[in-house]
Amino acid sequence: MEQHPAEASPVCAEIDLWAQGETAGHLRVPHSRNDSGWGTIAIPIVVIANGEGPTLLLTAGNHGDEYEGQVALLRLARELDPAALSGRVILLPAMHDPAALAGTRKSPIDGRDFNRCFPGNPHGSVAEVLAHYIDTHLLPLCDAQMDLHSGGTGIDILPSACGHILDDEAYMERSLAMADAFGAPITLLLKEVNAGPTLLSAAERRGVVALSSELGGAGRLNPHGLAVTERGVRNVLKHYGMLDGVPEGERSRRMVVPDLAHYVFAPHDGIWETADRLGAEVRKGERAGFLHRIEEPLAPPTALAYGAGGLLWCTRGPGRARAGDPVAVVARDL
Amino acid sequence: MEQHPAEASPVCAEIDLWAQGETAGHLRVPHSRNDSGWGTIAIPIVVIANGEGPTLLLTAGNHGDEYEGQVALLRLARELDPAALSGRVILLPAMHDPAALAGTRKSPIDGRDFNRCFPGNPHGSVAEVLAHYIDTHLLPLCDAQMDLHSGGTGIDILPSACGHILDDEAYMERSLAMADAFGAPITLLLKEVNAGPTLLSAAERRGVVALSSELGGAGRLNPHGLAVTERGVRNVLKHYGMLDGVPEGERSRRMVVPDLAHYVFAPHDGIWETADRLGAEVRKGERAGFLHRIEEPLAPPTALAYGAGGLLWCTRGPGRARAGDPVAVVARDL
Amino acid sequence: MEQHPAEASPVCAEIDLWAQGETAGHLRVPHSRNDSGWGTIAIPIVVIANGEGPTLLLTAGNHGDEYEGQVALLRLARELDPAALSGRVILLPAMHDPAALAGTRKSPIDGRDFNRCFPGNPHGSVAEVLAHYIDTHLLPLCDAQMDLHSGGTGIDILPSACGHILDDEAYMERSLAMADAFGAPITLLLKEVNAGPTLLSAAERRGVVALSSELGGAGRLNPHGLAVTERGVRNVLKHYGMLDGVPEGERSRRMVVPDLAHYVFAPHDGIWETADRLGAEVRKGERAGFLHRIEEPLAPPTALAYGAGGLLWCTRGPGRARAGDPVAVVARDL
Amino acid sequence: MEQHPAEASPVCAEIDLWAQGETAGHLRVPHSRNDSGWGTIAIPIVVIANGEGPTLLLTAGNHGDEYEGQVALLRLARELDPAALSGRVILLPAMHDPAALAGTRKSPIDGRDFNRCFPGNPHGSVAEVLAHYIDTHLLPLCDAQMDLHSGGTGIDILPSACGHILDDEAYMERSLAMADAFGAPITLLLKEVNAGPTLLSAAERRGVVALSSELGGAGRLNPHGLAVTERGVRNVLKHYGMLDGVPEGERSRRMVVPDLAHYVFAPHDGIWETADRLGAEVRKGERAGFLHRIEEPLAPPTALAYGAGGLLWCTRGPGRARAGDPVAVVARDL
Amino acid sequence: MEQHPAEASPVCAEIDLWAQGETAGHLRVPHSRNDSGWGTIAIPIVVIANGEGPTLLLTAGNHGDEYEGQVALLRLARELDPAALSGRVILLPAMHDPAALAGTRKSPIDGRDFNRCFPGNPHGSVAEVLAHYIDTHLLPLCDAQMDLHSGGTGIDILPSACGHILDDEAYMERSLAMADAFGAPITLLLKEVNAGPTLLSAAERRGVVALSSELGGAGRLNPHGLAVTERGVRNVLKHYGMLDGVPEGERSRRMVVPDLAHYVFAPHDGIWETADRLGAEVRKGERAGFLHRIEEPLAPPTALAYGAGGLLWCTRGPGRARAGDPVAVVARDL
Amino acid sequence: MEQHPAEASPVCAEIDLWAQGETAGHLRVPHSRNDSGWGTIAIPIVVIANGEGPTLLLTAGNHGDEYEGQVALLRLARELDPAALSGRVILLPAMHDPAALAGTRKSPIDGRDFNRCFPGNPHGSVAEVLAHYIDTHLLPLCDAQMDLHSGGTGIDILPSACGHILDDEAYMERSLAMADAFGAPITLLLKEVNAGPTLLSAAERRGVVALSSELGGAGRLNPHGLAVTERGVRNVLKHYGMLDGVPEGERSRRMVVPDLAHYVFAPHDGIWETADRLGAEVRKGERAGFLHRIEEPLAPPTALAYGAGGLLWCTRGPGRARAGDPVAVVARDL
Repeated sequence: MEQHPAEASPVCAEIDLWAQGETAGHLRVPHSRNDSGWGTIAIPIVVIANGEGPTLLLTAGNHGDEYEGQVALLRLARELDPAALSGRVILLPAMHDPAALAGTRKSPIDGRDFNRCFPGNPHGSVAEVLAHYIDTHLLPLCDAQMDLHSGGTGIDILPSACGHILDDEAYMERSLAMADAFGAPITLLLKEVNAGPTLLSAAERRGVVALSSELGGAGRLNPHGLAVTERGVRNVLKHYGMLDGVPEGERSRRMVVPDLAHYVFAPHDGIWETADRLGAEVRKGERAGFLHRIEEPLAPPTALAYGAGGLLWCTRGPGRARAGDPVAVVARDL
Repeated sequence: MEQHPAEASPVCAEIDLWAQGETAGHLRVPHSRNDSGWGTIAIPIVVIANGEGPTLLLTAGNHGDEYEGQVALLRLARELDPAALSGRVILLPAMHDPAALAGTRKSPIDGRDFNRCFPGNPHGSVAEVLAHYIDTHLLPLCDAQMDLHSGGTGIDILPSACGHILDDEAYMERSLAMADAFGAPITLLLKEVNAGPTLLSAAERRGVVALSSELGGAGRLNPHGLAVTERGVRNVLKHYGMLDGVPEGERSRRMVVPDLAHYVFAPHDGIWETADRLGAEVRKGERAGFLHRIEEPLAPPTALAYGAGGLLWCTRGPGRARAGDPVAVVARDL
Repeated sequence: MEQHPAEASPVCAEIDLWAQGETAGHLRVPHSRNDSGWGTIAIPIVVIANGEGPTLLLTAGNHGDEYEGQVALLRLARELDPAALSGRVILLPAMHDPAALAGTRKSPIDGRDFNRCFPGNPHGSVAEVLAHYIDTHLLPLCDAQMDLHSGGTGIDILPSACGHILDDEAYMERSLAMADAFGAPITLLLKEVNAGPTLLSAAERRGVVALSSELGGAGRLNPHGLAVTERGVRNVLKHYGMLDGVPEGERSRRMVVPDLAHYVFAPHDGIWETADRLGAEVRKGERAGFLHRIEEPLAPPTALAYGAGGLLWCTRGPGRARAGDPVAVVARDL
Repeated sequence: MEQHPAEASPVCAEIDLWAQGETAGHLRVPHSRNDSGWGTIAIPIVVIANGEGPTLLLTAGNHGDEYEGQVALLRLARELDPAALSGRVILLPAMHDPAALAGTRKSPIDGRDFNRCFPGNPHGSVAEVLAHYIDTHLLPLCDAQMDLHSGGTGIDILPSACGHILDDEAYMERSLAMADAFGAPITLLLKEVNAGPTLLSAAERRGVVALSSELGGAGRLNPHGLAVTERGVRNVLKHYGMLDGVPEGERSRRMVVPDLAHYVFAPHDGIWETADRLGAEVRKGERAGFLHRIEEPLAPPTALAYGAGGLLWCTRGPGRARAGDPVAVVARDL
Repeated sequence: MEQHPAEASPVCAEIDLWAQGETAGHLRVPHSRNDSGWGTIAIPIVVIANGEGPTLLLTAGNHGDEYEGQVALLRLARELDPAALSGRVILLPAMHDPAALAGTRKSPIDGRDFNRCFPGNPHGSVAEVLAHYIDTHLLPLCDAQMDLHSGGTGIDILPSACGHILDDEAYMERSLAMADAFGAPITLLLKEVNAGPTLLSAAERRGVVALSSELGGAGRLNPHGLAVTERGVRNVLKHYGMLDGVPEGERSRRMVVPDLAHYVFAPHDGIWETADRLGAEVRKGERAGFLHRIEEPLAPPTALAYGAGGLLWCTRGPGRARAGDPVAVVARDL
Repeated sequence: MEQHPAEASPVCAEIDLWAQGETAGHLRVPHSRNDSGWGTIAIPIVVIANGEGPTLLLTAGNHGDEYEGQVALLRLARELDPAALSGRVILLPAMHDPAALAGTRKSPIDGRDFNRCFPGNPHGSVAEVLAHYIDTHLLPLCDAQMDLHSGGTGIDILPSACGHILDDEAYMERSLAMADAFGAPITLLLKEVNAGPTLLSAAERRGVVALSSELGGAGRLNPHGLAVTERGVRNVLKHYGMLDGVPEGERSRRMVVPDLAHYVFAPHDGIWETADRLGAEVRKGERAGFLHRIEEPLAPPTALAYGAGGLLWCTRGPGRARAGDPVAVVARDL
């Protein structure tokens, strides 16, 4: 694969993206601080390449409080034998490094949600500059890309691969084939317009076969989600013939969240007491739970009901919810 | 019981603490804001009283991100029939109201951990003024007190009642009897000096029979912990003859955390991958887990080991730990 | 009126903008928080529609500390009888909801002045996303629009409707007719370039007949300003034949603030002591007041003079001014 | 008057408090900043002394957003002729200088409300160190003291002198005589325990005849309040024989706010629409106003009623109130 | 010179840029604050003009903690005799006034590094609006421009003029001639793409002969750097025939920093102990210094080496460095 | 030496303070964070002990931006051979670890200047708890103590040992002997009351022979100051017979800063241009420098003069000063 002519970026890669074997280093993103005008943020990057084959970009730490992907890619970087590989894997195990170091969804530097920053801006804030570099310098190198998300601090979620419902059927088939190979219990398909500010949409605009995921949540490192992730990324490598063998694991259930009726939102601040556990089958109109107000101790809690039935795919993680927070999301089979 | 002469406090109770039946209202704590010099914080309080009998103070929301006690006391306030009661229950379901509204351990107003503020200060910050009021105006009214804690955002913990190992054996026996009645799976006994800045220590300095608890954690409302709490507070009322009936539930296991060797601390920042689940039996020297550093992707993670064996009583909740955070605490049978 | 094809926006309206009768609900604007990745801000919206007639958009809470319009629209939403209406009124009584809840001009979420955010950006911050939605989804539905402002915390101002001096005379006549109908004591006409980032300019770019206003200030809810506002919005409905009757009240005085000479700016920080009350007739060169410096108690205060004569239309609200703040603005008859 | 032996304080006075004539300078309070370890805060002080006579301490800027006293004392410092004086006036026109420079009630340095800091602490924060100095170094020099307050940003208030109801009748008579001389329209007497953290209480603990005041509010410089203040401080000088002449102005009305029933508190956040203007005579049970919630536009506003009748002495200044804020305070004749 | 048609900007100049003699005043940039909706930032500007001749723009305070240029231009504004001048000098001695008043690199208002804001945005934040004004209203008036920088708080640097290596040789020659005239000990030439967000690049896009500089650092006012600057700006005026005489001083050494190998970056946080002083000749592979980690007191410090040899042109100023900070930069002769 | 009975402290030492040889570990100070209720701060501590002899406590990082002592003690910890020692050295190379990690004078955790926290408070903030531990657990073990300071970010200072002028002459002689041994170019003696909140005063209250120092400043690691420090601490060990040999280096000049007249304070904010370099001999009334105001470019700078003559011992580090900052301090020979 030939390098696309890339736009000017202030980011410097300290490693050779075309080297054979395993190479580890950093992407250096300028970050002007009051006490360090020429300071930089060093984003860890690992490239493992051997012989002929596709280029796959695996990323984690897009949101800093989503841990399964970060640990899975760190382990893959240490354990993958370059000699066993055909092609090139580019790993960004802590892509949005400032957020990953903070353990927060958004960056403490510029307050940005990195997955709302694509296609980025070479003169913008740290997150925008990095998004622009990934869009203009890394995605053009890739045949496929997977961005490993989890629910983060705010939500708990059943382990799932996530893809977009796309107009180009052949292209979408390639995404679904990658999702089947990844082998998460669920594959959740979202109808999203192509102009979205996510890495997934950016990859699609570049014609790269792309997926994201939700592999746990509630701000914890979920052991089951981690196992799904570690198996999944090796499955994807096998799917592309980059590793020997065939993908392992059960068949993924294809689901959708059709519309807003499948969300239950908190109408006011309060403590959320869910009626059902994650993974329950729920019915429209059933009680989803109670929202407790501490301000008026004798007033009854607000009862909320599901607006649609299906699988309880996602719930609020922390006990306290703010007005407007989703406290439950229901998915249906495609 | 006669009212002890209380020290001067700027807090005003808007309800009559000696009224019969159920009374709900607020404690009004002055809080001078830049845009409201005479502003107040209104702490919800419920008193349920009927005939003769002891006075029991039940508190939750000492830390704002500990939810089982808050929901249990809100439900008790709504559902307890005053006519069925003998004595007086004083309920503060969201005691440290500013933290409870924020869903954070510490107050967004003064940054204080309320359970490090006793015996308080009538001229101090909001938390100190409130602590002083509880110590000087509420505790002297009480025969017994229970402060309902959970692990909060940072730690996940097996449901437990918590008490102090006290020099006065008869006094300690009364605490243990209350703990047995409460009926949590575990009763954890801590050796704490009497001068501690917690509400539990303040109650002990006043000679009130007192317990705290840990009823779940990881910042969630834990359904099992909630059930233990709801049963437990009614059990305590039965124990004191304030409700008819006898305490229900299994026998509580008495345990201790003898020394620092039973804690595993993170030596540096990183993502904590625990080797064992909460409740596992672990042995000294076994691997407790890995601490992953994202800065150097090819370096092996730091392996940590247990310094003592026993029951894995408490683990780090969020995936990311800071240097100095406990990532595991081991308890032993007394 | 036909729905214009709207640009993609991440905002979801939970109500049907074409329903007959009165419908109340929310616009849901995504707001990714560290503890709620899929959180939303719920902007209250009320639509009252009946039969044929024009569509009028009434907005308040563009700046959160301007109260007359917010209260007037809340009252209109509760009291307007749908059966008495011909046409459709869309009400956003607390349009920039995060700022309105905070009681501050700018949003505590993204620090943005909402009236400097148009035409918005569907991938930007909360304020920009909302501005984009109003510009692309609501304004195209409207024949006329009025955005109800007051002076806010920083300035006190004579109740006025405000419009732009426009090149298109016929269009400007329609604005002036609406201003005459509104019936504020003053109609203040500003020369503003068409590319401005305000809602007023956005409406003009869409060809909607549009006004804003200044209905009091100093961060208070001004009873006189409130009365002017409540009468004014009903007057506008009558003007458009949407309610029976004719506009009530006195004739509005048309005025302008021609240039910078009509502003008095504080040259340094200090306490502003005005020489005249709001509404006074002042002359060029007269003393406008004293600016007191507390740092040097024996130094005389700085005397400031008016740069032009006319009506003292606006004064600094708070006693302390910063260098660069306008402490007086003088208006002249057109 | 002889200097009392003062406690050790890190504050340095750069002027001689015993000099004759007019002396202006600063009190230097240490303030360790990250970029200036040995930095100081310079509090302006003016001493005017001539011949024999009492020592009077006049202070303003205790709260930084209360302006009438600050401007009145700055003017007095410039205009009082030392030759016309008998005795000594010590002026601190911007006593809590960090808050006065910020125009905020509380200090931006340590977040302290200065009038909650007495008797101070020589090792505490800037506000505590300064309070300790005033208590230990200035108050012992004084025969009388007056601390000039206004309502500040949050409340609007009828111009009043304020004193404490004291057990020592002779002492209280001297305070009332000074209040009568000051000549504000109202003299408001508060029952306050002697241990309060205010400057007024500190003065009383030292046996100094002392008053505070409320001379306007809503964060503005009120022209009428300023006139009352300027006349009042000269009246006090005349009362003590320090200036020739007799106090001028009308008779002050002595009032009290007997208990909490005379306060109307906001039960939740909202926009406050007062039913009455400041100075109205109101009756128990009458509607005090409406509290508007913007979250639910069709819900009726919360109507609040007066808990006691009398003179509407104080109202909320800004339109938006927080739960717990007083929105109205009623005073009764003594 | 004719005024270029300028784009609409909300900035108002309070002085006449075409007046003869010396004129001082402000550029007024709108800055909406919560307590001052129509507030402005007043940027000091001085214009000195006499007869025929070129227009030269001299700016300092682009970064607020770079002092040599600020003091040099303030002195020039006071001391330059208009009668001695031929042409026009426009001086912005504290261009990014909010940062200059704070003494910080970036603005406390919007957190922006002003030299990353060009070509600006008339609807953006304060820094962007000002950058847009300078780009569209001042640069089109100019024949030459010099923006006076120093190292700021974070770095210490040898006094240097700085220019870009440009494709247009004749244009670059004019820059080099101006640099030779300025007469700093070093002229550092940077290869920078033309699209950069700096004032220097903005000037180049307008075809203005332009330079920046580095005249000291470590957050101090360096006496030697100040002397170089004061002489240098007069030298430039002589170079353009705007003052009589010829440029004074030694020959400037032309140098470059060819690539990343000439930077030494801190791989982790620590205290930087440099092996060499600024100005030393260093060799590739030599020890550049030690980075001390305080967390593990017995671990050896991290030794860092130069990646290329040359002149030690720039070193880290403060003792503590963050991961990613440059601790040494080496320059080579062109 | 016998261990004094220590007061209860929540700090745990993870090392044995009585072990022979070299032992390194941490003091664990509880620090309740919102996301880690049982979190701790780990303060590095090293004990080197061998045979009989005195106990010496050496501390650095009291202020986090003072680097010479930190690096000197880290090096001593690595390089001192236990076998060569007679006695015990306790090293806290980064005593106030939160500030040292931040590189700031004050702690980012609680905003406290650690050297204003003694004798501390076991229930206070992190800094107060640590100060209490050092005062109650470490000082009682010691014969002598030296706390290594530098000027920090805000001031630049001639390398000096610092001691107090004490009433007990014999005790003071022991301090002076230790200062002579240390061998800094200057020994600066301060008249400080015994009740001060510094570690030096705390040591004196315990009867420990104690010194502090100023070994450079301006936020840099000064090579000369570092050399003085490294030699000095070994000199002190030799002085106490803990290492073989005699103290090396020149004779220290004993000086004092007698009163406020020896300080030059900035009367307003501005850029400080010093007239003299550190170490110059200056005379009373001579110009100390200019303070430049950027707000009014044509106004002359404020000229400041020395209030007393002597050695220019200390100057402002950063170019920008705030009102009240010392910009020069003059010392005189004793």
